[in-house]
Amino acid sequence: MTSVSASTTNTTGAPERVSRRAEATRWIAGLHDELTALFGRLDRGGTFIEDRWERPGGGGGVSRVLIEGTTFEKAGINRSTVMGVLPELAARRLGGHGAANGGTDFFVTGVSLVVHPRSPMIPTVHLNVRYFELMDTDGNITDAWFGGGTDLTPTYPFREDVVHFHDTLKAACDRHHSSFYPRFKTWCDEYFVNVHRENEARGAGGVFFDHIREGDDDHGLNVDALQAFVSDIGRVLRDAYGPIVERRRDQAFGERERDFQLWRRGRYVEFNLVHDRGTHFGLQTNARIESVLMSLPPLAAWKYSPRFESGSFEAQLLDMLRPQTWVTDGHGPA
Amino acid sequence: MTSVSASTTNTTGAPERVSRRAEATRWIAGLHDELTALFGRLDRGGTFIEDRWERPGGGGGVSRVLIEGTTFEKAGINRSTVMGVLPELAARRLGGHGAANGGTDFFVTGVSLVVHPRSPMIPTVHLNVRYFELMDTDGNITDAWFGGGTDLTPTYPFREDVVHFHDTLKAACDRHHSSFYPRFKTWCDEYFVNVHRENEARGAGGVFFDHIREGDDDHGLNVDALQAFVSDIGRVLRDAYGPIVERRRDQAFGERERDFQLWRRGRYVEFNLVHDRGTHFGLQTNARIESVLMSLPPLAAWKYSPRFESGSFEAQLLDMLRPQTWVTDGHGPA
Repeated sequence: MTSVSASTTNTTGAPERVSRRAEATRWIAGLHDELTALFGRLDRGGTFIEDRWERPGGGGGVSRVLIEGTTFEKAGINRSTVMGVLPELAARRLGGHGAANGGTDFFVTGVSLVVHPRSPMIPTVHLNVRYFELMDTDGNITDAWFGGGTDLTPTYPFREDVVHFHDTLKAACDRHHSSFYPRFKTWCDEYFVNVHRENEARGAGGVFFDHIREGDDDHGLNVDALQAFVSDIGRVLRDAYGPIVERRRDQAFGERERDFQLWRRGRYVEFNLVHDRGTHFGLQTNARIESVLMSLPPLAAWKYSPRFESGSFEAQLLDMLRPQTWVTDGHGPA
Repeated sequence: MTSVSASTTNTTGAPERVSRRAEATRWIAGLHDELTALFGRLDRGGTFIEDRWERPGGGGGVSRVLIEGTTFEKAGINRSTVMGVLPELAARRLGGHGAANGGTDFFVTGVSLVVHPRSPMIPTVHLNVRYFELMDTDGNITDAWFGGGTDLTPTYPFREDVVHFHDTLKAACDRHHSSFYPRFKTWCDEYFVNVHRENEARGAGGVFFDHIREGDDDHGLNVDALQAFVSDIGRVLRDAYGPIVERRRDQAFGERERDFQLWRRGRYVEFNLVHDRGTHFGLQTNARIESVLMSLPPLAAWKYSPRFESGSFEAQLLDMLRPQTWVTDGHGPA
């Protein structure tokens, strides 16, 4: 996955860094195409429309959206490569590391995907991977890292689907470092939380990671190995999500399941607008708004204080929103 | 509207202040009942369900919701009287005045209302009035003010409805001070803005005001006169909104108007979750979440980059979202 230039020198001088940036940008563009092809196949009929956009402050992106497809009510897959001066608020939210090193200019290339299936029997899925750099005013890189993750948001409580998703993620993580799955699974549980809803999770989790840097003590991997890991996460949905779509697509459902799906989507909206750092970063850095908010569902509902009978599918789904061990080998996080 | 005890002494000593607080609490409870009765009548069939709640940190409220009524798809009218220690973030957002005076304890009593009609021919309306106090650690009041407002969010571009709404607000304001309507109309235009949507307004405006204090230079009114003004705003919807409901309730509409309504409601959700200070205050002070988010519509849609033909009703509506003079006397803000 990595070019010769990127793998031969990786700690000194601007040329290699420009190359890493170019390398990551190519990788993201390739992943974007791959994901578009995968979800086009999974939809079985719909086609993506594409918009190319430029950001006034530097950079731009390519947005692909499939609306009212056969399987997906809405599928959005964006890539963007943007750079410029980091707004103060965004810099503060990124945490001390970058700002403390005097980094005020940024570069980021990434892909993000959110899919809202028509059928409540098929879970919603989200994936995002990115490579980020901070520079001082002379253009020297002061910090660089990878971030990303993928998480599953079921409407109907098929436990085996969540187990399959987590098993596949764990296998992908374990190929790179044994600490990754347990750490990033917990991170995901801690991140996708509607704190204002008594800490209800957005979904059944997955993996989430940020600020993963070359040579970090807890993994010791170099930048190529890190990119290979993040690249594997970027491609994991074919195996982690594809089979779930295939086995659920013909399953019957009724108005009750659809109603519940629309209500759960309301919670998805709440998380993305109130808590999601990626969304706020987009709002603060003048990214194209229709692309930033592409994650929002086509239709969502709010109900007042709904109550669900104990044992109902709705109550079972809500039980799945408490962090728990999902992997079958039993060695997942406690 | 004001009690004898409140109107005889109003600048000295704790007893009067306790009385003002009690006075405002009674006023808010009465207004809550009045608004519930008004919207029950306007709905012509639906009934409000009531929830009484207590806030762990102090105080509580009464939430009334009408779901799937005849006229209103959802109508929520809350009152709350809460007090306690102000979380740091909430204190900072309130602005320097209170925090600079060492106020860390707060008291607020208020009523808020959001109505989402079924018919896209009837506009959505919001109203909120409140009385707020900050205290130092000895319980001395360091700051006290009124806030509130009401604004109209049409789906269908009936200009005469917006004119009627603004004319009625202006008349209500003018009874108290000639500066109020122009100032509070502009404040409303500046507040209800989806900055992230290229400064698109949430609706066609109304009035909005906050931190209105006894003896402020620009009006010179005492606390009783201020409460009388805010009380008039609290009761203005009978005349400002009632006639609009009556003349639009039987007007025919189709799927296109309904689709547009659901899409506009998505923008309403965006404003309330991303920008609204009242919502954030509720989230930060542990108010009952179902009451804080009662403002969210029962159903909302997001479309990807919709385009509307020039001259279409949708395009006309979007034109109404730029701040403009609405009052018929022509002496409104430029």
